[in-house]
Amino acid sequence: MMINGIPGGVTAAKGFKAACCAAGIKYTGRTDMAMLFSEAPCAVAGTFTTNVVKAAPVLWDRRIVKEVGKAQAVVVNAGIANAATGATGMAMCAQTAQCASEALGIPADSVLVGSTGVIGPNLPIDRICAGVTQMAASLSDTLSAGTDASRAIMTTDTINKECAVTFELPAANGEGAVTVTLGGMSKGSGMIHPNMCTMLGYVTTDCAIDRALLQKALSEVVTDTFNMVSVDGDTSTNDTLLVMANGLAGNATIAEEGEAYELFKAALTAVCRDLAVKMAGDGEGATHLIEMTVTGADTKEHARMLAKSVIGSSLVKAMVFGKDANCGRVLCALGYAGVDFDPAVIELYLAGEEQTLCFYRDGCVQAFDEDIALALLSEKKVAFTCDMKMGDQTATAWGCDLTYDYVKINGDYRT
Amino acid sequence: MMINGIPGGVTAAKGFKAACCAAGIKYTGRTDMAMLFSEAPCAVAGTFTTNVVKAAPVLWDRRIVKEVGKAQAVVVNAGIANAATGATGMAMCAQTAQCASEALGIPADSVLVGSTGVIGPNLPIDRICAGVTQMAASLSDTLSAGTDASRAIMTTDTINKECAVTFELPAANGEGAVTVTLGGMSKGSGMIHPNMCTMLGYVTTDCAIDRALLQKALSEVVTDTFNMVSVDGDTSTNDTLLVMANGLAGNATIAEEGEAYELFKAALTAVCRDLAVKMAGDGEGATHLIEMTVTGADTKEHARMLAKSVIGSSLVKAMVFGKDANCGRVLCALGYAGVDFDPAVIELYLAGEEQTLCFYRDGCVQAFDEDIALALLSEKKVAFTCDMKMGDQTATAWGCDLTYDYVKINGDYRT
Repeated sequence: MMINGIPGGVTAAKGFKAACCAAGIKYTGRTDMAMLFSEAPCAVAGTFTTNVVKAAPVLWDRRIVKEVGKAQAVVVNAGIANAATGATGMAMCAQTAQCASEALGIPADSVLVGSTGVIGPNLPIDRICAGVTQMAASLSDTLSAGTDASRAIMTTDTINKECAVTFELPAANGEGAVTVTLGGMSKGSGMIHPNMCTMLGYVTTDCAIDRALLQKALSEVVTDTFNMVSVDGDTSTNDTLLVMANGLAGNATIAEEGEAYELFKAALTAVCRDLAVKMAGDGEGATHLIEMTVTGADTKEHARMLAKSVIGSSLVKAMVFGKDANCGRVLCALGYAGVDFDPAVIELYLAGEEQTLCFYRDGCVQAFDEDIALALLSEKKVAFTCDMKMGDQTATAWGCDLTYDYVKINGDYRT
Repeated sequence: MMINGIPGGVTAAKGFKAACCAAGIKYTGRTDMAMLFSEAPCAVAGTFTTNVVKAAPVLWDRRIVKEVGKAQAVVVNAGIANAATGATGMAMCAQTAQCASEALGIPADSVLVGSTGVIGPNLPIDRICAGVTQMAASLSDTLSAGTDASRAIMTTDTINKECAVTFELPAANGEGAVTVTLGGMSKGSGMIHPNMCTMLGYVTTDCAIDRALLQKALSEVVTDTFNMVSVDGDTSTNDTLLVMANGLAGNATIAEEGEAYELFKAALTAVCRDLAVKMAGDGEGATHLIEMTVTGADTKEHARMLAKSVIGSSLVKAMVFGKDANCGRVLCALGYAGVDFDPAVIELYLAGEEQTLCFYRDGCVQAFDEDIALALLSEKKVAFTCDMKMGDQTATAWGCDLTYDYVKINGDYRT
C-alpha cells in the first residue's frame, strides 16, 4: 500500500485552515492558543482519556462526537487544563464555542475545544474569547499556519509535532484516482501513558468516509500507536485525539470495510505512529527514545502488555539515561507484566541500527562486550527486542529515559 | 490489644541468634552477608515475588516453605541477586545450604537463603561458603548482633531497618501469661512495589503457633503493609518475606483462630507496618515519606487501589520533591486507579501533624493558603487523605518522592 510522507500537518489536507495567537493565558512571549477550521462540515471521531476525572473540554468534545457527529472547528489552549473546575469549567467550554460560532458563522455545537496545562484554575475566559476572535480573522491554509498551530499547543514539549501523508483512492465520479491527504499535530511530553495521556492530537483529512467507519479506524489505530506510548505512567484528565474528515478530496466515499478502508487505516496508522513516537522521544527531560518490541507472543494483548511493562519501568528508564547495560532490569520488567511465560526459553536483545547484542538466553544473563553495549546505549534511540517463543504475535511500545530534568520539570511545574 | 514496642530486631525473641561478615561479594569496607539461627526448629511461613522471573533463592525458599514447612537458619547476601542464573544459580543455593548445614549441624533443607543485588552475575560461591563458616562461628543473641545483621543486607538503603514488639499470651502450662516477642529486619529501597519488591524481610518470633495459621496471618498482614509500599513501580525477581516461629516463649500453641491468633496478627502487623514504612521513607534518593490514606471507599480492594495509585504516580512524587502544591495531580492519579467514583463529591486533603488543608471539594480545586501548603509539603512526612463518600472502607499506602538522586542512583547502579 502506497502511503507517501509529505511536509506539513493539520493544514495539508484540502479545505483546512489554522491560526494561532498569544492570548496570555499563562506564558509570556509565546503563542498559547490554536484554531483549526474546515471549509466544509466534517465527520468527526474521537478517543478520550479513561481517567475517571475528566476535564470539562473532554466532556464537551465527547458529547459532540457521540451525539452530534459533525464538527467544523477546534479551539485549543495551553497553560490551563480546565480540569477539576466543575460547572464553571463546562460553562467556559460553551462560552468558547459560542464565541467561535459567532466569529466563524457555524453552529456552536460544531466547535470542539481542547485544553492542556495546570489542573484546577479557571480559564481566563475574556482572554480566551478575545483569542478566538483574533484567530478567526487570521485563518490560513498554508503549511506554516499548521506548523504555528502545532507550536501554540505545546506545554513542556521541546519540539512541535506534526506529520502528513497522501495516498490514492478511486474518484467519486468514477474517473480514475484522486489524491487523499491526511495530516495531524499533537502535543504531549509529560503525563503520557497508555490509554491516552495529556496528549492532545488533531488529525485532519479531506477523505470522504462514513462517520462510523472513521471512529472504527481511529479506535483500532490508537491501540497500536498512541496507547503504546508511556512517558511517566500517568494518565491525564484531558487526553483527547480527534479526527476530522471533510470529504473534499473527491474520493468515492468509504462506506464499508474493504481495500479503500484498509488504505485509509494504513495512512492513519502512519500519521498516528509518527506523532506517538515523536511524543515518546520528547518525553519531559528525555535524552533517549526507548523502543521495546516483543515478538513470538501467544496473543496480541500479551505482546502489548509485555512491551508496555518494559517501557514503563523506572529502573529501565534510569538505566538507559545512565547508559548502564544493567539489562536484567528489562527481564525483570517483562516478569511483572502480568503475562505468564517461560524465563528459560525467551531471548532478549539490545538492537542497534548496525549491530545487535543478545544479553539474555537459556535462562541466564549472557556475557557481552561492554563497549558494544555502551555504543548501543549511546544512540538516540535505544531498542530492545524479546522473542517470547510462544506464538507469532508482536507489539512495539515507545517511551523515554528518566532523567534529572524530568524531576526538575515536574518538581516545579506551576511556577 | 496491648502490643509493646521494644528495642531490637531479629534477635529480640528467645532462642534467635545472628551474625554477619564482610565476604567481599561486591562491596569493600562493609559487611555483606548475614546469618540467622534458631536454637530450635521453627515453623516457617513466607510470601514471595509475583514476578514470573523468580531468582534462584526464591525458588529454593518457596520449596522449603511449601514442602518442608520447617527451618532453622537463614543465609543472606547483598551485592548479587543470583537471578537469571539458571541451573547454576540453583546449585549455588544448594551449596550454600549444605555449607550452613555442616557448620550448624542442621539439615540442609532447613536452611533458607536470600540474595539481593545485581541481576545476572553468578555468586562467588567460595567466598559465600567461607562467609557461612565464619558466621556460624560468631553467632550471638545480643540485640546488636541483630542490628549488625540488618546492616549487612543493605544495598542502596541508607538506614538499616529493624523493629520488635512484645505481647502477652496464656502460658502453655496454664499458669498465667508469658511474654511473646516478635522482631524483624528488612532491606529495600529501590525496585519496591506492591506485591513484593527487592525487599527482603525476616521476622522471628518465639511464639508457638501452628504453621498453617502462621502462613495465614502472614498472607493477611502483608496485604496491608508491605504490599502497600511503592518506591518506583518495579517488582523485583528476589522479593522474599519469611517468618520463623520457634515456640520457645512457652505460650499455649496457637492452633486455631481466636483471641490469641488476633493478638499475634496485631503484633505481626505492627512489625510489618513499621518495616514497610521505613522502607518507603528510605526509597532511593527520597527526601520525603508520602502517605496516602483513602477513606469512605465502597470496598477494601478499591481503597487499596486508589491509595496505591497516588503513591505510584511519578508526577505526585516529583511534586512532593519540589514542594509544589500542584495537588490536581493527586486527583488525577485517583482517576486512573481503575476504580469508578464520582469526582463531584470526593474531598481531598493535605494533612499535616497540626493543620489540614482541603484542596479539592465539590468538583473543584479549592483556593488555599500557599504558605500553609508549603509548610505541609516541607514536613518529612507528606500525607494526603481522600474521602470517597461511597462507604466505610479505608486503606493507607506509603511511598516516597522522586528526586535527582533516584535517577543518579539508578542510572549508574552497577558501577
